[in-house]
Amino acid sequence: MNAAFDLSVDNVVFGFDGEQLQVLLIRQGLPGVDMAPDRFHMAVPGDLVFPEEGLDQAAHRILSNLTSLDGIYLKQFRAFGAPDRVFEEKDREWLTRIRPHPERRVVTIGYYSLVAMADYTPRPSSFASRAEWCPLSDLPRLAFDHNDIVKAGLLQLREDVARESVIFELLPEKFTLGQLQRLHEIILDKDLDKRNFRKNVKRMEGVVPLDEKQEGVLHKPAQLYTYVRPQ
Amino acid sequence: MNAAFDLSVDNVVFGFDGEQLQVLLIRQGLPGVDMAPDRFHMAVPGDLVFPEEGLDQAAHRILSNLTSLDGIYLKQFRAFGAPDRVFEEKDREWLTRIRPHPERRVVTIGYYSLVAMADYTPRPSSFASRAEWCPLSDLPRLAFDHNDIVKAGLLQLREDVARESVIFELLPEKFTLGQLQRLHEIILDKDLDKRNFRKNVKRMEGVVPLDEKQEGVLHKPAQLYTYVRPQ
Repeated sequence: MNAAFDLSVDNVVFGFDGEQLQVLLIRQGLPGVDMAPDRFHMAVPGDLVFPEEGLDQAAHRILSNLTSLDGIYLKQFRAFGAPDRVFEEKDREWLTRIRPHPERRVVTIGYYSLVAMADYTPRPSSFASRAEWCPLSDLPRLAFDHNDIVKAGLLQLREDVARESVIFELLPEKFTLGQLQRLHEIILDKDLDKRNFRKNVKRMEGVVPLDEKQEGVLHKPAQLYTYVRPQ
Repeated sequence: MNAAFDLSVDNVVFGFDGEQLQVLLIRQGLPGVDMAPDRFHMAVPGDLVFPEEGLDQAAHRILSNLTSLDGIYLKQFRAFGAPDRVFEEKDREWLTRIRPHPERRVVTIGYYSLVAMADYTPRPSSFASRAEWCPLSDLPRLAFDHNDIVKAGLLQLREDVARESVIFELLPEKFTLGQLQRLHEIILDKDLDKRNFRKNVKRMEGVVPLDEKQEGVLHKPAQLYTYVRPQ
């Protein structure tokens, strides 16, 4: 009745390449061991929480540890605690190799993060043998219940976009209204009317036109905008 | 580095009495022991998750166990895992008396629930020596970080009311538009214009006028409405 739990955090990091949403994945490996690339699964970056550490603190530490990504927006969105979260042989073997108590039930706290892909090149470390962006539309079978975690993170992102300014974390510093509309369409998974969208943008606090236009494009260069977080 | 965690759920149950929001609290006691009422704190109903149990399942079991409240709306909203969640002497003593591993760090998953107060009379059991409604505006110092958990539950309820139909869980089967407006005002913590509110109600899916009016009131009896969840 009173077996203990291990506690982890898992970070769903969304990036935007101007065309589609991507998710940052790591290849689960063993530190310092060279092995067949498909021996273990790909996963979202996550690990165990230390005994004296807060959850948000752990999320930042672990993400930095595995992917060298620091100081980004992170939002807790859900705990995942199904008793059968670990069910595949590959996952069990990896746990056995890397965890001091591989038999323990692990409850994980899901965080999501948003990154402008232009600002970050994946750099794996610790037990991550690789780190790379993967299009949301083309996810492989991930470790544990990580496919569910990514799906839940996306649903939360959709809800939050409807009422918060989180979306600007995904854009470069200077962006066009076309990019802003495309990003809304991708996250909300529906087409938006261009005229209505531009009307709505006028009401969005913090979207500021710059005295600059796009450079190096073949079509007519579009006006650039930036986002200034309201104080 | 690898101490284990205990995992609990805590349920913030909101009730509405027609005038204000209330929260369901239990008095922490020891099963079968009669003791001074202020020996331990009041708390929201929560307890440890069993080793083989899902989180939602645990939330329902524990709420039923402590308060005899069954089959209600429960929504996970946040994990609370600050390393210093247990800091008061009273709380430590209670844990020592009731938990097999009182020294273990406990991470708790917060759920909130909504109940029409007319439908439920608190019935304590297990280690709850009492169970009672307490106005949100008049909460005592609660056990552990439960004051923070209630506050966070209220914030989540506010967000959800803005986009979901959860609010109807708090109303009796038949209600007036005055009651519906008052409940919105309390949750959103602002006054609403009566005419605009009634216009908005017309757009709310599922709010259906009944062929009935209030009975037993001194003022002019108001039209009654009910809520039919859209399929």
